[in-house]
Amino acid sequence: MIRIGIDAMGGDYAPENVILGVIDAYSHIGSDTKIFLIGDQEKITEVCRHYGLDSGNFVVIHASQTLGMGEHPVSAYLHKSDSSVSVGFNKLVEGEIDAFASAGNTGAMLTGSVMTLKTLPGLLRPCISAQIPLADGKNMLILDVGLNTDTKPAMLYQFAILGSIYAKTMMGIENPRVALLNIGTESKKGTVSAQEAYRLMSNTSEFNFVGNMEANVMFSGGIADVLVTDGFVGNVCLKQAEGMYEMISRLGVRHPFFGRFNYEYYGGTPVLGVTAPVIIGHGASTPLAIRNMILEAEKAVKNQLVDKLKNAMLCQ
Amino acid sequence: MIRIGIDAMGGDYAPENVILGVIDAYSHIGSDTKIFLIGDQEKITEVCRHYGLDSGNFVVIHASQTLGMGEHPVSAYLHKSDSSVSVGFNKLVEGEIDAFASAGNTGAMLTGSVMTLKTLPGLLRPCISAQIPLADGKNMLILDVGLNTDTKPAMLYQFAILGSIYAKTMMGIENPRVALLNIGTESKKGTVSAQEAYRLMSNTSEFNFVGNMEANVMFSGGIADVLVTDGFVGNVCLKQAEGMYEMISRLGVRHPFFGRFNYEYYGGTPVLGVTAPVIIGHGASTPLAIRNMILEAEKAVKNQLVDKLKNAMLCQ
Repeated sequence: MIRIGIDAMGGDYAPENVILGVIDAYSHIGSDTKIFLIGDQEKITEVCRHYGLDSGNFVVIHASQTLGMGEHPVSAYLHKSDSSVSVGFNKLVEGEIDAFASAGNTGAMLTGSVMTLKTLPGLLRPCISAQIPLADGKNMLILDVGLNTDTKPAMLYQFAILGSIYAKTMMGIENPRVALLNIGTESKKGTVSAQEAYRLMSNTSEFNFVGNMEANVMFSGGIADVLVTDGFVGNVCLKQAEGMYEMISRLGVRHPFFGRFNYEYYGGTPVLGVTAPVIIGHGASTPLAIRNMILEAEKAVKNQLVDKLKNAMLCQ
Repeated sequence: MIRIGIDAMGGDYAPENVILGVIDAYSHIGSDTKIFLIGDQEKITEVCRHYGLDSGNFVVIHASQTLGMGEHPVSAYLHKSDSSVSVGFNKLVEGEIDAFASAGNTGAMLTGSVMTLKTLPGLLRPCISAQIPLADGKNMLILDVGLNTDTKPAMLYQFAILGSIYAKTMMGIENPRVALLNIGTESKKGTVSAQEAYRLMSNTSEFNFVGNMEANVMFSGGIADVLVTDGFVGNVCLKQAEGMYEMISRLGVRHPFFGRFNYEYYGGTPVLGVTAPVIIGHGASTPLAIRNMILEAEKAVKNQLVDKLKNAMLCQ
């Protein structure tokens, strides 16, 4: 059995969108997958009543507190020990659920990932990743997209391992091509850190390094399946793409390619390199996004993503 | 009199596009502005003959050598002392021209800017900048877009001064709002360097600092006129925008907003913080881009951009 915990109180439109997303997910998940709604029992019942749903259909793990989107992540996580986020991580670490997903306070989710779950042995730092659509119809994984701002070359090297395994396990890519985001294709381009990361990556057999990639071909396709960068640059890239997508939508430009930038299809941002699957959703998550977040969590458990990442770190 | 030197041999389609661009520029420049074509006299004459132009219309400064786009910038600049780029910088430093523009080898142009012209006294490092279009119809200056990859907070602080003066002098913005590109709006976000740069900028009266800007609102407008970042991140942002523009064009999406991403309108990338106006054009520069590069150079001389930057550095 696969047990997915979802934060009922997480996101700008919680618990409504979470509940509607869970209902949608029911018709897509496997028969041996069980969803646990973690949050305020009373509020969940109230929403169910409003939508004419039988709250008996949901397995609820009660959590009396809620973390606001604006609360300070670390202190809120530590002080509200009965918040839906804290309860989720505790259930995960106690083995009562196999994965935890939330569209709530991102910082608190990261705090829980690192403080309650812990980093995989041998890994310097976990990271977060995202998929971006390519012109050739495929997707590329980009990581880190925001967890680590001051990044050492050895960290970038390990992100490449994490990304490569994710692409293989979750995106079905046989021998993922890994590129390093840089400001030129030559080995001596970029920051001192990027140059050293290039050197480490080009001497490895742990993954399929294809060299530096410049940002003007980021969406072109045909170059790489995994793009490695530090959390500052990755976050800027992702937000810039998001801003461009929003602008394109606002301007009324409709094109299938840009439709693929819609975050709802990706469900959320997996935290890679901690001891259990964690997915962080967009604050504005719709029911569709919640559904896809649940499906992503289910797939991570089914495909044993964390075990594979763990083994890779032990075999370094 | 304003004397603009332009590298006749610079760019993928030189000298054709340069000559056609100069002809176009003639009907836009002031009557006291003179254009000097720097390059191989014979090749220039040949192109003029091909297009049925009277080569006597052009003031040519002969340079017997040409720097290829693929040549190593520093060694090519140093060893080919009679290249059009080297001659251009020498004429600039000797005061025979007031500004120099080229769509040629970017690295060689930067080498010439720093080695032949020198950095302004008091400035840690020069930088390069670009204008990006905003949804509100205005443009925002972003800098550094590629000269300095490992950047200290004090360098970012000085880029803010350079950018602010450029926005005032060249873009006609009264009291330019300066933002720092970061991965959150709070002061404690981002790299150690970004946090320290924020601290320096928020304590200044040298420019109008408005705080951190996230990349998702980079094109929105209404927030800032100048966006400061290091050369690695700025280069990635610019190339990502360029890649997105190319993709949008390739997909057949037509919209006036995206039309404004066309580099041809901006002429080139000014080098800020050296002792004379230098503009580096896109390698694929069209005659329109060359014309706008010349007009930008003329404006920089007319508006005494370098003197203003120099004074600001002395008054720090």
